[in-house]
Amino acid sequence: MAANAIIGQSGGPTAVINQSLVGVIEGLKAGKDVGTIYGAMYGVRGMVEGKLLELNGLDQAKLERIAQTPSSALGSSRDKPDVEYCKKIMKALAERDIRYFFYIGGNDSSDTTRIVSEMAASQGYDLRAFHVPKTIDNDLMENDHTPGFGSAAKFVACAFMGDNLDNRSLPGIKINVVMGRHAGFLTAASALARQFPDDGPHLVYVPEKAFDIDTFIGDVDAVYKRLGRCIIAVSEGVHDASGAPIITKLAKNLDKDDHGNVQLAGTGALGDHLAAALKAKLGAKLRVRADTLGYMQRSFPGVVSEVDAKEARESARKAVELALKGEKNGSIAIKRVSDSPYKVAYERIELSAVAAKTRTMPPEMLKGDNDVTPACIAYLKPIVGNLPVTEQLPLVK
Amino acid sequence: MAANAIIGQSGGPTAVINQSLVGVIEGLKAGKDVGTIYGAMYGVRGMVEGKLLELNGLDQAKLERIAQTPSSALGSSRDKPDVEYCKKIMKALAERDIRYFFYIGGNDSSDTTRIVSEMAASQGYDLRAFHVPKTIDNDLMENDHTPGFGSAAKFVACAFMGDNLDNRSLPGIKINVVMGRHAGFLTAASALARQFPDDGPHLVYVPEKAFDIDTFIGDVDAVYKRLGRCIIAVSEGVHDASGAPIITKLAKNLDKDDHGNVQLAGTGALGDHLAAALKAKLGAKLRVRADTLGYMQRSFPGVVSEVDAKEARESARKAVELALKGEKNGSIAIKRVSDSPYKVAYERIELSAVAAKTRTMPPEMLKGDNDVTPACIAYLKPIVGNLPVTEQLPLVK
Repeated sequence: MAANAIIGQSGGPTAVINQSLVGVIEGLKAGKDVGTIYGAMYGVRGMVEGKLLELNGLDQAKLERIAQTPSSALGSSRDKPDVEYCKKIMKALAERDIRYFFYIGGNDSSDTTRIVSEMAASQGYDLRAFHVPKTIDNDLMENDHTPGFGSAAKFVACAFMGDNLDNRSLPGIKINVVMGRHAGFLTAASALARQFPDDGPHLVYVPEKAFDIDTFIGDVDAVYKRLGRCIIAVSEGVHDASGAPIITKLAKNLDKDDHGNVQLAGTGALGDHLAAALKAKLGAKLRVRADTLGYMQRSFPGVVSEVDAKEARESARKAVELALKGEKNGSIAIKRVSDSPYKVAYERIELSAVAAKTRTMPPEMLKGDNDVTPACIAYLKPIVGNLPVTEQLPLVK
Repeated sequence: MAANAIIGQSGGPTAVINQSLVGVIEGLKAGKDVGTIYGAMYGVRGMVEGKLLELNGLDQAKLERIAQTPSSALGSSRDKPDVEYCKKIMKALAERDIRYFFYIGGNDSSDTTRIVSEMAASQGYDLRAFHVPKTIDNDLMENDHTPGFGSAAKFVACAFMGDNLDNRSLPGIKINVVMGRHAGFLTAASALARQFPDDGPHLVYVPEKAFDIDTFIGDVDAVYKRLGRCIIAVSEGVHDASGAPIITKLAKNLDKDDHGNVQLAGTGALGDHLAAALKAKLGAKLRVRADTLGYMQRSFPGVVSEVDAKEARESARKAVELALKGEKNGSIAIKRVSDSPYKVAYERIELSAVAAKTRTMPPEMLKGDNDVTPACIAYLKPIVGNLPVTEQLPLVK
């Protein structure tokens, strides 16, 4: 008798997370011994509540449209299952004779997959449990980079390209707050916007370095004195030397999630705070503006890295391939085989290698406390792909 | 002897303002009696300070790259010239025997053009002075719509498409603040994001209607109770019944420009304020997030309406055509000739018809106090052009 399968999506969406969903569905449809392919609505929550969709009947045209649609088509969840929660998941799997489990998400999702896999093993329930990587933060261990990051990085690079041109035409100081709680990769991608020598971002602040407000003000002042303008990229997760996020210094009405993390996205507070600090120190007459790039970074349709879309699909197919071959469990990691020509390989890694861990930017990608290195740019370029070409005229202030 | 020409760009940039710049340059290069084509750096400021670029030598490939680059390539200005300022402009024109004057901008720029034209006439100085329309706000009188608006509207529509998908996967309340001080057209364009019956934005607030915070909270509560989520589009310029902008009720560190207008853009204050008000009334446990779409709306590269790019170029060419034919002055208005097939005409209108006036949304485009009508959607569609196609799966909460 054919074994059934289940797929879930978890955590913050990305522009290409549905490429991975479609990659799993395609792989399973091509498998010989696969029966019903269930989609769990809203991640693990749909599993325990029995809210499932049957996905076998989706035709290729609809699958392609889903693949090109940003954000989790099955719905997502911020639930972080503990052992009790995972017991309910196991019960739901057994009730429907589900033998293939695929969970698309970040490091919390790989941890859920690990718990479910271990529970199945201890109960003698034959299950193949795979984690398919996804995160715009690019913070999964063992991975050169993660599906979802390239497209978010492309959005960030384009946003800074446009904002740099805007700021060049109406000079002033401009702060843009970029997503990233612990890892600065996405903020670093702002540096891809530089096409001409005077292009911003002129300063880049990531969570890998302690953030000091007085140093920040001094940095901005120096750039402004030199260029008559300054574009700044700041990670939402910048923190002081004690590790306290800068945003908590002005926290009011900020939510905390199930993990105890304070809300960083969906508010303009950090940017507004930094803008006010600059005006207070450098002069109230200065034109200082702050934007927070917000949820657009992970969901904007049409701004997608082709490499990212392809890798999101292929890493999912790899997970299915391994599961159908009989591998019990694992996560898929993207390894860079060569830079030129750009080439990657998809490798099975242990769930425990990625579960509940966070990768941050390596030191060789960071230049001083406020910039990235050429090595960082070289790393980012093939993942993000082609950017719009811009032109400039030589202006004299 | 050939007469010389000058071009300036003014006010907030758009994604296609350089299409208009290139349209003027191309038209002038093709003209028989045109000598040096000067570009004024940073608008009128470059004129009075003698900071000029000679543009005749730009080849077609470079012109095309400039045309496709967002934001004012010549630099821009927020200066609002008075009579004294315009005297200096006149002096600069006479010194260089400049007989063609083109100013690309909004209603303030047409007023500058009017003053300069009248001053030239009163001095017996032979000058052709034309205003070329530009504004993402779509608020110029006599125009069906304005160059720059379609591309900004496309960005807003895409942003809401993505955010709607994001919010569908992780349900909650989401506020997006859109540019627009007096006119709600750009905020209304968020409604183009609706592709499926449950798609947001579910509520749309424009400056044409007085904004009441309690009514707003009640509206959001009703949608949230019905759908379990709510996406809200709010113009930055929403104001109470007395006309006071809602943002000034929490104003701290907000700049005022030369026109006495309080800063609305470049801050997340309005969104954060509305989010806090919702949580205070509807429950602190609610997931409420706010993003301010920010300067990306007017400068994001690659997200351009093809119709908008074409019209920005053609309206500039029309201005040059009229000037070379001997018309003394005027502004170019886009008139809609037919909806299906979509067709426009470019007409000369008096500078005084557009100078320092503001067009707002007509009542037939607004439905109640928190939505737009099908007539509004029909009006917007051809201007914005094709949007990404998305797909959805039927989810049960």
